[in-house]
Amino acid sequence: MMEHVNVAVIGIGNMGSAHAACIAENKIKNMSLAAVCDVSEKRLMAFSEKYPAVKRYKNYDELLNDQICDSVIIAVPHPLHAETAIKAFKHGLNVMLEKPADISVSKVKKLNQAAENSGKVFSIMFNQRTNPLFAKAREIVRSGQLGELKRTVWTITNWFRTQSYYDSGDWRATWSGEGGGVLLNQAPHNLDLWQWICGMPESVTAFCDVAKYHQIEVEDDATIFTRYKNGATGVFMTSTGEYPGTNRLEISGELGKIVLESGVLKWHKLKKSISEVIKESEQGFAQIDCDYVEIRQDKPEIAHMGILQNFVNAVLYGEELISPGIDGINELTLSNAAYLSEWQANRSVSLPFDDKTYDEMLEKKAHHSHSYGNHSKVNDKMSYLSRWQVRW
Amino acid sequence: MMEHVNVAVIGIGNMGSAHAACIAENKIKNMSLAAVCDVSEKRLMAFSEKYPAVKRYKNYDELLNDQICDSVIIAVPHPLHAETAIKAFKHGLNVMLEKPADISVSKVKKLNQAAENSGKVFSIMFNQRTNPLFAKAREIVRSGQLGELKRTVWTITNWFRTQSYYDSGDWRATWSGEGGGVLLNQAPHNLDLWQWICGMPESVTAFCDVAKYHQIEVEDDATIFTRYKNGATGVFMTSTGEYPGTNRLEISGELGKIVLESGVLKWHKLKKSISEVIKESEQGFAQIDCDYVEIRQDKPEIAHMGILQNFVNAVLYGEELISPGIDGINELTLSNAAYLSEWQANRSVSLPFDDKTYDEMLEKKAHHSHSYGNHSKVNDKMSYLSRWQVRW
Repeated sequence: MMEHVNVAVIGIGNMGSAHAACIAENKIKNMSLAAVCDVSEKRLMAFSEKYPAVKRYKNYDELLNDQICDSVIIAVPHPLHAETAIKAFKHGLNVMLEKPADISVSKVKKLNQAAENSGKVFSIMFNQRTNPLFAKAREIVRSGQLGELKRTVWTITNWFRTQSYYDSGDWRATWSGEGGGVLLNQAPHNLDLWQWICGMPESVTAFCDVAKYHQIEVEDDATIFTRYKNGATGVFMTSTGEYPGTNRLEISGELGKIVLESGVLKWHKLKKSISEVIKESEQGFAQIDCDYVEIRQDKPEIAHMGILQNFVNAVLYGEELISPGIDGINELTLSNAAYLSEWQANRSVSLPFDDKTYDEMLEKKAHHSHSYGNHSKVNDKMSYLSRWQVRW
Repeated sequence: MMEHVNVAVIGIGNMGSAHAACIAENKIKNMSLAAVCDVSEKRLMAFSEKYPAVKRYKNYDELLNDQICDSVIIAVPHPLHAETAIKAFKHGLNVMLEKPADISVSKVKKLNQAAENSGKVFSIMFNQRTNPLFAKAREIVRSGQLGELKRTVWTITNWFRTQSYYDSGDWRATWSGEGGGVLLNQAPHNLDLWQWICGMPESVTAFCDVAKYHQIEVEDDATIFTRYKNGATGVFMTSTGEYPGTNRLEISGELGKIVLESGVLKWHKLKKSISEVIKESEQGFAQIDCDYVEIRQDKPEIAHMGILQNFVNAVLYGEELISPGIDGINELTLSNAAYLSEWQANRSVSLPFDDKTYDEMLEKKAHHSHSYGNHSKVNDKMSYLSRWQVRW
């Protein structure tokens, strides 16, 4: 029986280098860093200065062929996610993939098939799933304690970014390099949590505003309207151009509502179902008895380290994945559908949509991609732990 | 110079009878009740039992011809608002009109023209404008203290109603009797405040759900997406089928944001404009210095009585109207446009829209109107003061 996960990190840019450092410093139990791989000699040398014992690769095919690891963490640019992961599965490796799964659903379908064929462990870095309040919200909704869904509204506009952020890499905020804007880079965390808690809708209508606040070629502001199977509605709003922004998720159902904001889950639990009161009350303006509970975070958000540890435990002991890789297709379906709606005069897009149409339209966009970047040095000293944790 | 307003109330159903009682009991300074008018003998007799000195009319033409008043309060069914008010103006009377202005914009255009031609005082009962927090929000936005508008989101889902409410009158929740559902009956207060604070958008896209929670022929749930001239976006959500519901208005601009909820106005005031920081900061994930202020209601919401007193003072002393009658067209434009969008496959409707198309489509809907009502006695003992005040 395996007692240790030996991992290589493919792509050591912003996120990959942080994951690699964390593992090199033995912060993940039973995981060690066998190698790092990057196309950039500069990045490899910078990493080597700090961690000279770790092997370096410029080409990930060589890495895979050398058979020096049982697992890989993939943190390459979005459009290379699926193909890199598929190759890893074909080499019999377990895969920990950075989000999003890729930039188009068609590619992720192939990825999920390859993962299934391999029988290997496949996890994706939706680290915000480790936030106890979102996990609690999911439990409340999925267990039926909120009754049938009526409406869900997420205002998640605290993803503020400056122009220098976008200028810090050619690939950033381009159709070819990232496959989209705020919906593809920042909001995937929230889109994933949204579907994780409320389930997938049946249709998506979206209003995506390109270059509204920044000099970029993709959207930095979006409003999405969703419709669920039972007729319930959803609204999701996000932006990198607002400040201080808001992070507020409301879910309303037959038996009350929950609101997550400011680090608190506020729960109104009705003692009778709304439809019963609508039918039976003789009062036109009836009130419904209800309990009110406030739930605060009782344990830390274990974030990236929690997801990495869970991945290790899944490989070694078969622990259930917090964020299974195959789930990555869901939030990407939402953002792809949002673009499709925007590109087709904001019409409603039914799920599943036609992959081929999407890929053709994205290809046209990507064909005209160009970088506005002046590649300024962005001066960000964000700790590993604080990266993309839930911010209220 | 006039020293007293002598008013007749036309229509003494729910609201009209409450206004009439308030005036009969001398609660409005310098206003006295000359007469009440209603098609229902039963309602007239019920009123007379309590206030025997007040003259009664079954026909408002007779009332107008008798010249016993200088002003009228009109609280007849929505589809009769404009024609009744136009007749009153033609008789040289001042008009206090219940909301909404009528059910279709084309009729309200004629009404506004008649009001202008008459030179008389014309007010409309948007009593929530007297809430100090909404007035403060308007001041902050209109004075430019929030900078250019980016996004506004109003979740106003605390208009819960039971089936017995809808069954309490044939006209309720029908296309012919009310001209719409929650957007025409409950939400006009909020739609008016929204445009009063943020201004009118350039386009409206809407998703209106008919009979989602009640046995009615109109919508009891709606989500509206608006687009403003500068590209800013808005979302407005309302329902009579949720509980406990939410009343939360967020407005985000170049210089911060305000949130109104739970009876508090929360104001983040940035020390630098967002666009300046986006352009100039070398930090990718910059923070912006900001002051935070919470404003609580420092005086009561004077509500209907405040609007009536303001009407009197406008007639007698030329006081500026809090809620000028001609403003009624704005919120009605929003709800009419929302229906037009819903009826045309949720397409975006540009403002101003084509009245004729709207009237034809509404006429078709109204032609098939029928009441589901069993005319149960609704048992509501709501005080005059508490009616349709802002509820948080």
